[in-house]
Amino acid sequence: MKEIVECVPNFSTSDPKVVDAILTEIRNVKNAYIIDYTFDDYYNRLVVSFVGNKKSVLTAALNSAQKAIQLIDMNKHKGQHPRLGAVDVVPFIPNKNTTLEDCVKLAKKFGKTLAKETNVPVYLYGEAASKPQRGDLDWIREGEYEALKEMIKKPGRKPDYGPNEAHPTAGATITGARKVMAGFNVNLGTADIKVAKKIAKALHAKKGGFVNVKAIGVSIPGKNITQVGMSISDFEKTPLYRVFELIKIEAKRYNVPIVGAEFCGMAPLKTLIDVANYYLKIDNLTEDRVLEIAVQRAIEKGKGE
Amino acid sequence: MKEIVECVPNFSTSDPKVVDAILTEIRNVKNAYIIDYTFDDYYNRLVVSFVGNKKSVLTAALNSAQKAIQLIDMNKHKGQHPRLGAVDVVPFIPNKNTTLEDCVKLAKKFGKTLAKETNVPVYLYGEAASKPQRGDLDWIREGEYEALKEMIKKPGRKPDYGPNEAHPTAGATITGARKVMAGFNVNLGTADIKVAKKIAKALHAKKGGFVNVKAIGVSIPGKNITQVGMSISDFEKTPLYRVFELIKIEAKRYNVPIVGAEFCGMAPLKTLIDVANYYLKIDNLTEDRVLEIAVQRAIEKGKGE
Repeated sequence: MKEIVECVPNFSTSDPKVVDAILTEIRNVKNAYIIDYTFDDYYNRLVVSFVGNKKSVLTAALNSAQKAIQLIDMNKHKGQHPRLGAVDVVPFIPNKNTTLEDCVKLAKKFGKTLAKETNVPVYLYGEAASKPQRGDLDWIREGEYEALKEMIKKPGRKPDYGPNEAHPTAGATITGARKVMAGFNVNLGTADIKVAKKIAKALHAKKGGFVNVKAIGVSIPGKNITQVGMSISDFEKTPLYRVFELIKIEAKRYNVPIVGAEFCGMAPLKTLIDVANYYLKIDNLTEDRVLEIAVQRAIEKGKGE
Repeated sequence: MKEIVECVPNFSTSDPKVVDAILTEIRNVKNAYIIDYTFDDYYNRLVVSFVGNKKSVLTAALNSAQKAIQLIDMNKHKGQHPRLGAVDVVPFIPNKNTTLEDCVKLAKKFGKTLAKETNVPVYLYGEAASKPQRGDLDWIREGEYEALKEMIKKPGRKPDYGPNEAHPTAGATITGARKVMAGFNVNLGTADIKVAKKIAKALHAKKGGFVNVKAIGVSIPGKNITQVGMSISDFEKTPLYRVFELIKIEAKRYNVPIVGAEFCGMAPLKTLIDVANYYLKIDNLTEDRVLEIAVQRAIEKGKGE
């Protein structure tokens, strides 16, 4: 496949039957391939990552969104993650030989079509945003599903597509384009949520931290530890190792050990290369010098070098 | 391509015309793809890495070896790297859906055919070795090209294929099968070669170091630094980060800083994953959780998950 786009829709459900119905819609589209999905009751949220060419990704996004809108009733939905609707957010992400501009176009087609076919209002965010403040998901989701009926009427909050009112069971949907992100969780050897929150604050862009980082401090139920959860929206400019080193520095201050960590979602190769370059003092490692990538590219390129 | 083998032949030349003639032989084989090559005057050696299916890799290895044997005269060869012949060593390495056993078979076919067609004696090494001590390249190369005429007559040193005497201009060739290796160089901020040699000794399997590691200390001409060069033959059992940490520990003892490092050849993804798992305290990162690999595998596998 020469051109690849990734789509990571977030659906407001953790009901296995609904999850299965949504995944089936994606699986049934030719040239769309699920690479990962996770759901849990705590967040009551399904996050799917799939890839394909532009056409197949758009079709799979629309089909799965329509199924979710049919099956999910937001009036009964509770969960720890902020959400505005049954199909909460649908980002399109350039993966291979595609650009952010391609993904902006896809998001707009997706939003326009979904609104037309389901009557769910749609907001554009990220690179597809129609106004600067709509670049930020958190701003669009203010008040969440519960406040949507009122919020949608406020000045500057008219949806980009669809009616100017919340769908009675599916709320609203947000779609847009963004670069690939790195999600990363760091576990702290303390049950004191205040420490996790203070460290998260030190990282978070809006609180004086790194410009491309969002972070929260959360409790891990039943484990006597806490977690700093973060996302890095541009890990080329703000590399993961640097954020991790800042966590180490702040944790030390509170005499709290880091007891583990994990990627939340897929690990972008560039974050691993940056880690190796930093900790092993390598000057020159790039993606095309990684064996598995070099082999793949050589075969795809054919006889050229 | 469903089955991929890598071949990394080492030729005793750094003459650009000869290099080009050798590379051309590989490029001309359908389904054989060069992923990397390096050559320099100091070692007077060309190292090529190419991949393809079993048949194309065997053909490209034979064609390039025959060209090198035609063009290189070992009687005129000087260089810092130990070598036994014009085509010094030709390892076959499983890459994708192929096994060490497949590569042993390829090495034997390669050796048998090369000896028959060129009259160059061939030794099998690594996993293809016919006797335990022949597993080790250094043992086979003892005395190098200059001593080959005498060494080849000694007990236990009869070649596996071809005549029991050195080829007059091409010496002998060694071929075999091995796992993919990690080559890594660490630069020390001292011109004192003794420190580099002591650190290399601490790492080297034969001198009490890690079982899968070979290491040497060398001077970097004109740069006032020295280098510890190493290869890890099984980086799954002896991960790169651990060897690097041992270098740090030993360098500290001599108050010598590590000023840089580089992979020598391609970086295997697993070494980067191990680095991230160690330094970021990740428990669970595996190759299939790296975005670029997951996308590639999902598309290759088709609709399955």
